[in-house]
Amino acid sequence: MVKETDILIIGAGPCGLFAVFEAGLLGLKCHLVDSLPNAGGQLTEIYPKKPIYDVPGLPDIIAGDLVQNLLKQIQPFKPEFTLGETAVSISKDNEDYFILTTSLGTKIKSKVIAIAAGLGCFEPRKPQLSNLAQFENHGVDYIVKDPEKYAGKNLVIAGGGDSALDWVIYLSDIAHSILMVHRRTEFRGAPESVNKLLELVHQNKIQLVTNAEVKELLGNEKLEAVKLFIENKDDLEIKTDYFLPLFGLTPKLGPIAEWGLGLDKNAIVVNTFDYSTNVPGIYAIGDINTYPGKLKLILCGFHEATLMVQSAYKLINNGKNPSFKYTTVTGIKPLN
Amino acid sequence: MVKETDILIIGAGPCGLFAVFEAGLLGLKCHLVDSLPNAGGQLTEIYPKKPIYDVPGLPDIIAGDLVQNLLKQIQPFKPEFTLGETAVSISKDNEDYFILTTSLGTKIKSKVIAIAAGLGCFEPRKPQLSNLAQFENHGVDYIVKDPEKYAGKNLVIAGGGDSALDWVIYLSDIAHSILMVHRRTEFRGAPESVNKLLELVHQNKIQLVTNAEVKELLGNEKLEAVKLFIENKDDLEIKTDYFLPLFGLTPKLGPIAEWGLGLDKNAIVVNTFDYSTNVPGIYAIGDINTYPGKLKLILCGFHEATLMVQSAYKLINNGKNPSFKYTTVTGIKPLN
Repeated sequence: MVKETDILIIGAGPCGLFAVFEAGLLGLKCHLVDSLPNAGGQLTEIYPKKPIYDVPGLPDIIAGDLVQNLLKQIQPFKPEFTLGETAVSISKDNEDYFILTTSLGTKIKSKVIAIAAGLGCFEPRKPQLSNLAQFENHGVDYIVKDPEKYAGKNLVIAGGGDSALDWVIYLSDIAHSILMVHRRTEFRGAPESVNKLLELVHQNKIQLVTNAEVKELLGNEKLEAVKLFIENKDDLEIKTDYFLPLFGLTPKLGPIAEWGLGLDKNAIVVNTFDYSTNVPGIYAIGDINTYPGKLKLILCGFHEATLMVQSAYKLINNGKNPSFKYTTVTGIKPLN
Repeated sequence: MVKETDILIIGAGPCGLFAVFEAGLLGLKCHLVDSLPNAGGQLTEIYPKKPIYDVPGLPDIIAGDLVQNLLKQIQPFKPEFTLGETAVSISKDNEDYFILTTSLGTKIKSKVIAIAAGLGCFEPRKPQLSNLAQFENHGVDYIVKDPEKYAGKNLVIAGGGDSALDWVIYLSDIAHSILMVHRRTEFRGAPESVNKLLELVHQNKIQLVTNAEVKELLGNEKLEAVKLFIENKDDLEIKTDYFLPLFGLTPKLGPIAEWGLGLDKNAIVVNTFDYSTNVPGIYAIGDINTYPGKLKLILCGFHEATLMVQSAYKLINNGKNPSFKYTTVTGIKPLN
């Protein structure tokens, strides 16, 4: 079954979410597709607990809270979400609709596509281990999608940045045991996270091995143990249920690069009138686009989303201009 | 004495205020000039108690609270304010600085001027009364600048919109007596304000006369009484200390129209690269500018302010590009 929507938004980060709001004001429904398992993009995946200081009118907001605020703001407009699926290919039917197909085969039909894909698909940085692929989803996870999966389990977590620190701290209440492995002695993460980690080590809630690396994965069907290389010491074999190398995510433009859009250094070229691309009906907003003077800031993406939706309305309504209203005067009219 | 600043901002509305923040991130100081007595522009003057629904990340915020949030956000960057003075004329010295002169003769020197004047200067709508000018500032006020001025005084307030309603309600606790005069029986203001007003009338805290108009001002040096025309009744003379006709404000572009800037229907024409005007060093951001696709929204002004400041930095620093940083990474460094 092909789902249909007014504006298909690729990317459920802050910019894609706010596009739902501006579309809703004009009576347009949106469907968001994101390869990540949750809405919020980088804010949710990379720095959910970090403060942002440059969202206008919010002097100091935690990234995850900004996502929650945006989800609340768009709630009256009932967006649909297809999460955990990557937008793979688009085709056009004979009625001027795009049909998008995701990595899991979901098909969504729409006259307008707004690419709000941030820095692209995020792909985990993987360690160089010979039999890594064999254990992917069989004991090796690069992203924590569902923390409850690790309840009562033994974990080896590698990494020294915020992602590793945050998850070690979070999972220390859930897992049976955690061994944290870090290549250096210094951590790249927030000082308060490092302090919290050291406190957990002190309380024997987790074990920490520094100047160390996982150098081999052991097991048959699934992971059973890892072999640890520790500087100036003998190698150590550690039994474990899971190995989580949390080395951060690297952005890749991904399949979007093949859609015939004008690109400049991995960004999609748009004009600043309506943030449309060279393909009629496809827009690009937020960090993924580029134009003279472009800044990769959330607040700029909000503006771009707003102007984009005005143009999309005209395209969907055969050239008719939307009527411009102030929410202070008209309030919010929910969509069905 | 001529004051000096990095960016002189004309207009202390939300867009001008946020420009202070983005300038501060780049180490630039700002000085704001506004003809209104308080920061916040229309938000403070026209609808301080009204909710706004379309500021991204703030699903439902009272306009006055948004102003407070913005003032908090820019506080580390210590902007200077010249309020209650209208920007009247600009000239250029022989060192590439603009010198702005206000209606009260204040002079401010700056390499960059950012016009964030919204819909222009707001001028009060005045009633048609023959000797009105004689009593201006001698008993007749069009704008409530300092509510405490009316403590223990007898007031006649005319109007039927939100401005009149809000101030009658507010001043009912401060003034000795208030007579509210309205030409019709229905009010144009928010229903909850009307209900509150009727409650105050019921409690005898204020008096309300509808289908009535002030038709004459009486007094010598200062206002002593007003003569009231009431439909189907005899005229009534009312002793009063002050007469406040609160009929709202109308925007006028004002002296800015004479500065040689490219205009289109009372708006200043800018490009969307950096929101610069045809005069090098003068930018225009927010509701006062126009470009293809322009929407008069606060969130768009935030974006425009941000891009403008990048360009202003280059201009001030002889072509040097600012280094781009994320507040989440660097935090906020206050200015002295």
